[in-house]
Amino acid sequence: MKATIAGSGLVGSLLAIYLRKHGHEVNVYERRPDMRDTSIPAGRSINLAMSDRGLRGLAGVGLADEIRKICIPMHGRMIHTIKGETNFQAYGKPGQYINSVSRGELNKLLMNEAEKAGANIYFNQRLTRIDLNKATSHYTDTVTHAETFAEADTIFGTDGAFSAARMQLMTNTDRFDYAQKYLEHGYKELSIPPINGEFAMEENALHIWPRGGYMLIALPNIDKTFTCTLFFPFEGEESFAALHNIETARAFFERVFPDALALMPNFDDEWQHNPVSSLVTVKCLPWHYTDKLLLLGDAAHAIVPFYGQGMNCGFEDCTILNQLLESGDSLEKVFENFVAQRKPNGDAVAELALGNFIEMRDKVADPLFVLRKKIEARFNEKHPALWLPLYSMVTFSDIPYDEAHRLGQWQNGIMEKVMALPGIESKWDSLEVEEYMHSLIKEFSL
Amino acid sequence: MKATIAGSGLVGSLLAIYLRKHGHEVNVYERRPDMRDTSIPAGRSINLAMSDRGLRGLAGVGLADEIRKICIPMHGRMIHTIKGETNFQAYGKPGQYINSVSRGELNKLLMNEAEKAGANIYFNQRLTRIDLNKATSHYTDTVTHAETFAEADTIFGTDGAFSAARMQLMTNTDRFDYAQKYLEHGYKELSIPPINGEFAMEENALHIWPRGGYMLIALPNIDKTFTCTLFFPFEGEESFAALHNIETARAFFERVFPDALALMPNFDDEWQHNPVSSLVTVKCLPWHYTDKLLLLGDAAHAIVPFYGQGMNCGFEDCTILNQLLESGDSLEKVFENFVAQRKPNGDAVAELALGNFIEMRDKVADPLFVLRKKIEARFNEKHPALWLPLYSMVTFSDIPYDEAHRLGQWQNGIMEKVMALPGIESKWDSLEVEEYMHSLIKEFSL
Repeated sequence: MKATIAGSGLVGSLLAIYLRKHGHEVNVYERRPDMRDTSIPAGRSINLAMSDRGLRGLAGVGLADEIRKICIPMHGRMIHTIKGETNFQAYGKPGQYINSVSRGELNKLLMNEAEKAGANIYFNQRLTRIDLNKATSHYTDTVTHAETFAEADTIFGTDGAFSAARMQLMTNTDRFDYAQKYLEHGYKELSIPPINGEFAMEENALHIWPRGGYMLIALPNIDKTFTCTLFFPFEGEESFAALHNIETARAFFERVFPDALALMPNFDDEWQHNPVSSLVTVKCLPWHYTDKLLLLGDAAHAIVPFYGQGMNCGFEDCTILNQLLESGDSLEKVFENFVAQRKPNGDAVAELALGNFIEMRDKVADPLFVLRKKIEARFNEKHPALWLPLYSMVTFSDIPYDEAHRLGQWQNGIMEKVMALPGIESKWDSLEVEEYMHSLIKEFSL
Repeated sequence: MKATIAGSGLVGSLLAIYLRKHGHEVNVYERRPDMRDTSIPAGRSINLAMSDRGLRGLAGVGLADEIRKICIPMHGRMIHTIKGETNFQAYGKPGQYINSVSRGELNKLLMNEAEKAGANIYFNQRLTRIDLNKATSHYTDTVTHAETFAEADTIFGTDGAFSAARMQLMTNTDRFDYAQKYLEHGYKELSIPPINGEFAMEENALHIWPRGGYMLIALPNIDKTFTCTLFFPFEGEESFAALHNIETARAFFERVFPDALALMPNFDDEWQHNPVSSLVTVKCLPWHYTDKLLLLGDAAHAIVPFYGQGMNCGFEDCTILNQLLESGDSLEKVFENFVAQRKPNGDAVAELALGNFIEMRDKVADPLFVLRKKIEARFNEKHPALWLPLYSMVTFSDIPYDEAHRLGQWQNGIMEKVMALPGIESKWDSLEVEEYMHSLIKEFSL
């Protein structure tokens, strides 16, 4: 089979490697220049949190260990209060962690591997049109303006949240359901450089400054810097619009993020020059057109970043597609099965991601939330078959997202009752509470 | 002011007349050929139900009486059972009715009036691009392929459900929320010709053959034909896909619409040649870009046809925009106020339209539904200030759609309790029921 891949981002590059393992001819067309030759523009989603689903996708082509070398483990959240106090909340059991990894480094490595595996990558190729019935895609070179086209048996659209391949489905087929919805929050990236050649804060944690309606986070990089991201409303009393010059921005940080600001010598420059970017959720259906086009990754299901699952979900798409390609079914059947299996998971992870924004910016600072997490962790430790916390299901398992989402709602119902027990703060680790949870699990059994 | 209008459909043509009344220079660009010179393709949404909001929009430019001449009043629904029995359900009080009108005739009349008022209409002009900051729009002539552009102070996008103007907002601005969602049902048009030069059925009614999961409807035309529309699933056991040849289609109609089929001498030909069209709901935000572009009508809020409100809502857009243009506010403020006022109404009428599909295809055949309507009508007659049935609010009033939607849900809650009264069938017109409704209205007062 001859396959065209539109987009050599993370998912497109990994998919190219998978398809080469199946012996298919693979040509990848990428709108941007080759990032291995050019510097990556600063200020846009520099690092990512790789967790189990992403690593499983990489392991499927033997790359998990290679990637781990450029990862920094983050074992939990480090919460920074407004007074500058910190407290650490583990993500899972000891030994469980997520991984901070540079989007650029990861993408370069995957492109190198794709080419090593025999895929061709063509850069500066803007997708202009797809002949859906022939799987022929047309491109304009963004440098030379030359027009070209690629004939293939099928096309994989992995060209991200603003997918041009998806736009072809939308404008050239009937009955394409589509929704793009933006958050009222945008984000701006800042940075914390090393101090005396060392990380300026605990390196094995994801740092959060939760402030209710907004938050600042920081992830470690292998060069011992932290990339910080402010998630903040576009409009309103406390918003990017309100912080219209460097003085108001600095005064605001001094008031609500004083400990972070003290570690940001480049604050003024970064605030003034890094863009404010928007955050979108995209849902659509169908994801495929016969056996001629299939959307994967953000092109099919772009989500907000708050569960760190965008790339992980896209890599899991590759894992699942690889399994289905091994089934011997026709390609159209493979595409149908892929969509039937992945669409509910895409919808579920979109909801989980939106929900986790509230959790990160608000609830993590609430002592009752912390207590609830402790009760869940204790029960999970004693009865692992009965209870796996939602975060662990999403991050440290391959339980389908939609099942995790359903289980999470069920757990919510139970934990609301547990947290309403009089005196729960003092008896949270008692046999009484444990037995009450057992009885609730029985009562509300799914 | 110099205004460009993209699209000379119903809303664009009416808007052109309103803008000319304000003394603005108006140039209208229309993708299709001039329908006054060409025959309209058969089989696609031939007639519409004009009600009070639409007539109010026309009255604002002195055209209501002119349009009434090409309307046929429909005083209620004529329900056709599977056994061929009919029963009539009035839409409102005696003297209240909706109007069947030909989309083509109405559009031609409005284009004539727009030109008479001094607007220029350019046909065969496909919108290719808008420079949003300059309000310059670019077109390709679909016949000569000549490229042209229009400079203006502002652009009104009235180019329908698949608006090219809206696509410019979507692709060239950040944070544009957008959703298009298709029904699982499509529609096919059929016809009932006159018998001996007369209407083959009662002419002053909207005929419905409700069959649960689907329905057939028929609206009268001034040439004494009826346009029939089958709303039917695309896929499934009973679906367009299942009726794959004329024999299965005919057998299906003989089974479920025998009385209608008997009046359709051209059934075979129409079934085979008329297309199956899809039904979409479109929601988006924002509807405007500064003071340079404003979307109105289906371009801003396309809805399914089951409340007969698509055109009516679009004409009400013109009424409201006209009021706001008279305010003396800046154009940007006018656009902002328009969107703030109309967006909740667009969302509400979209929900009402989806809900009325269930009502038309299913509930109208239910004796309890008919009884409920009788109780509401009786209470409305005795206490008009306390209760106006939802259908009347939407169709015979200018109560904002979102208020009607909210009131309708409140009425639902009350009527559920009323219909649950033991023996309601026999005592529905008793003082007891009337007093119970009074007490519920007090208890659930908004």
